Amino acid sequence: MSELFTVVSPDDAFERLRAVLASVARIESVPLERAVGRTLAREIVASEPLPPFARSAMDGYAVCARETHGASESSPIYLRLAGEALMGMLPAFALAAGTCARIHTGAALPRGADAVVMVEETNLLESGDVEVLASVACGEDVIQAAEDLAPGDLALAAGHRLRPIDIGGLAALGVVDVPVAAPPRVAVISTGDELVAPGVQPRAGEIRDVNGALICAMLGEAGAQARHYGIVEDDEHRLFAAAAAALAQSDALVVTAGSSVSARDTTARALARLGEPGILLHGIAVKPGKPTIVACVAGRPVFGLPGNPVSAAVLCWRLVVPAIRLLLGQPVSVGGLGAAARAARLTKNVPSRSGREDYVPVTLMLGAGGTTDAQPTFAKSNLIFSLVRSDGILRVPRDAGGLRAGELVEIYAW
Amino acid sequence: MSELFTVVSPDDAFERLRAVLASVARIESVPLERAVGRTLAREIVASEPLPPFARSAMDGYAVCARETHGASESSPIYLRLAGEALMGMLPAFALAAGTCARIHTGAALPRGADAVVMVEETNLLESGDVEVLASVACGEDVIQAAEDLAPGDLALAAGHRLRPIDIGGLAALGVVDVPVAAPPRVAVISTGDELVAPGVQPRAGEIRDVNGALICAMLGEAGAQARHYGIVEDDEHRLFAAAAAALAQSDALVVTAGSSVSARDTTARALARLGEPGILLHGIAVKPGKPTIVACVAGRPVFGLPGNPVSAAVLCWRLVVPAIRLLLGQPVSVGGLGAAARAARLTKNVPSRSGREDYVPVTLMLGAGGTTDAQPTFAKSNLIFSLVRSDGILRVPRDAGGLRAGELVEIYAW
Repeated sequence: MSELFTVVSPDDAFERLRAVLASVARIESVPLERAVGRTLAREIVASEPLPPFARSAMDGYAVCARETHGASESSPIYLRLAGEALMGMLPAFALAAGTCARIHTGAALPRGADAVVMVEETNLLESGDVEVLASVACGEDVIQAAEDLAPGDLALAAGHRLRPIDIGGLAALGVVDVPVAAPPRVAVISTGDELVAPGVQPRAGEIRDVNGALICAMLGEAGAQARHYGIVEDDEHRLFAAAAAALAQSDALVVTAGSSVSARDTTARALARLGEPGILLHGIAVKPGKPTIVACVAGRPVFGLPGNPVSAAVLCWRLVVPAIRLLLGQPVSVGGLGAAARAARLTKNVPSRSGREDYVPVTLMLGAGGTTDAQPTFAKSNLIFSLVRSDGILRVPRDAGGLRAGELVEIYAW
Repeated sequence: MSELFTVVSPDDAFERLRAVLASVARIESVPLERAVGRTLAREIVASEPLPPFARSAMDGYAVCARETHGASESSPIYLRLAGEALMGMLPAFALAAGTCARIHTGAALPRGADAVVMVEETNLLESGDVEVLASVACGEDVIQAAEDLAPGDLALAAGHRLRPIDIGGLAALGVVDVPVAAPPRVAVISTGDELVAPGVQPRAGEIRDVNGALICAMLGEAGAQARHYGIVEDDEHRLFAAAAAALAQSDALVVTAGSSVSARDTTARALARLGEPGILLHGIAVKPGKPTIVACVAGRPVFGLPGNPVSAAVLCWRLVVPAIRLLLGQPVSVGGLGAAARAARLTKNVPSRSGREDYVPVTLMLGAGGTTDAQPTFAKSNLIFSLVRSDGILRVPRDAGGLRAGELVEIYAW
């Protein structure tokens, strides 16, 4: 095993990498309708008030609030109807004393009006006067100009990954060309003499490459442009050549090593030759996934993940995805763990060894009292369907010394 | 207000719609690398054992377990090295009595072997014999053929939305062309005399259309092919013509109505003319979003959502997204609520009226004791940035009569 094999915590491993990463500063502009899931490359600041004018929040009558003072069902007040505030324009008239204007939800208030009486609390008389049955306060049922955002307000921060509701916010501000981070290009290489591509029928002793497709799918979901560079045999020189060529076209490289010690050593030696600063660490205090290599070449992250698919998936999620998020300019908390943890109640004890962060696949069920119950599935880490059958993974923190049934625990859903 | 205006629960509204929907039975095949997020149109059954042969889970020596019986550090047993099980092929030799074979993680066991002794519990002697320092049980450190999946086992169910880890499972099975549901085509129309497209500078009294982009983004994320058919003024005949033309090209239609009562009536009358069975209900016991219209035309769902963006977003999520999931063939629970609820602890009291399902935007924070805390943000429902600033929405169940600080509550993250 490599002399570099030392064991550090996943948090430390991530922070060692963060310290030497360069940012990918490529920005591109995408139309609003294709911006979901992309990461803002610049902050969005409101340049106009939102809404741009005071609007009615109800169907009713625009009034001057103090003129309704004391109005009630038993003691109504009467206002003369001065006109109607039509949708889509500013009323040409102003409210004179003793008058009101018919208004619909969303229409601009006429000058002189500062509140709306909802239609249910009025009667329109045959005389053309409006009987007001309730007193309203200044601003009642009015959305003030700039109530949502004032010019200069931060609307969305740089590094924010856009959700569908954010697209609505950008539409409101008129941001139809959205400045986003270009997707980091990630090269993925599978190694292993026993591997064939998923589309090939394995011969006796061969198996299909799971990690290439799996890692590309995870990184694609995270916002990368992942490309599989194929399967390379367990040979240091061939792997070095393939890795160097792939990295030359990419912002990051992920090699899933063969599972055996000798295959891992091959990977470590090949990755060590790629450039400076080189291998940062080999071995992480995490289960599954201990024999992971983290390296950096000229500011670009390079990973050697274990060959078995469960370990590869967990370490890809735990270290590679946060690194991609850094390259995209997203805020990533210390240690790299995402904010997506959800609390769930553990259904049975989970033992663990102190000094190591453990991950266990779980299925989630609605539990009693509004909680989510997490049921650990102690599957062998080589079996990809033990992950496929799970809803997420349970994190057993480094020094928890195991978790007990009934505890609230941290779950990361797939 | 329309005579059809009756108020039913969101669950009932969804089930009335489900009862009259036709399925979209278009299936397409996509390459594995583009299958994330797509919905399986057919179940995937394993046609081969996975793994296809018994494999070693460790680096070490393949043995016949009973020959190691009684071995220990103080009393080792000795086996003759018969050869090496190479990666990617079935060993040509079988283990004779008293022999073992060098093996790496992932390699196929030779015939006659039924367990692996890890290398750390052996010594290779200069004589070529292997000293075994521990006894192993039959099957120890072996992954049996078909241990993950046996031929005929269900690997993934029809209607399952593919996650990145599922892509790994499909790769393992050699499913490189994935049968998925074609995305339902959803037409989205915005109505309102005050609206201009997001790319247009509004004049006085006008505002930008938020809902068109917002609804398309939400439905796109849900797996639909959403297309915005533009802004139509509040005119029954024009809206009918636009809606009929859009629906003729689509599997579903969403109209976001103007917010005023008159605009809603226009929408209701236009939608009522589209075809049978027509409007199923007008008015839902939900806040925000009460003035929602649910209709069906020749098996295709049609929605009239409120004009204000917060109501439109909540009702799109609550009713339209589950309808899209039905069209995709996904399993949707009774009432349409997704399984994505997470439990969080409420930080302050939330009042609600009995008989109505309420939704309140919340921000989420890591709380004490491993819980997530949900902080309600009581914003006006017309302000899109009150949603943009939230992490999700809190559901106040129909007859909860409000929720109290400290309770575990249901959160749906955006």
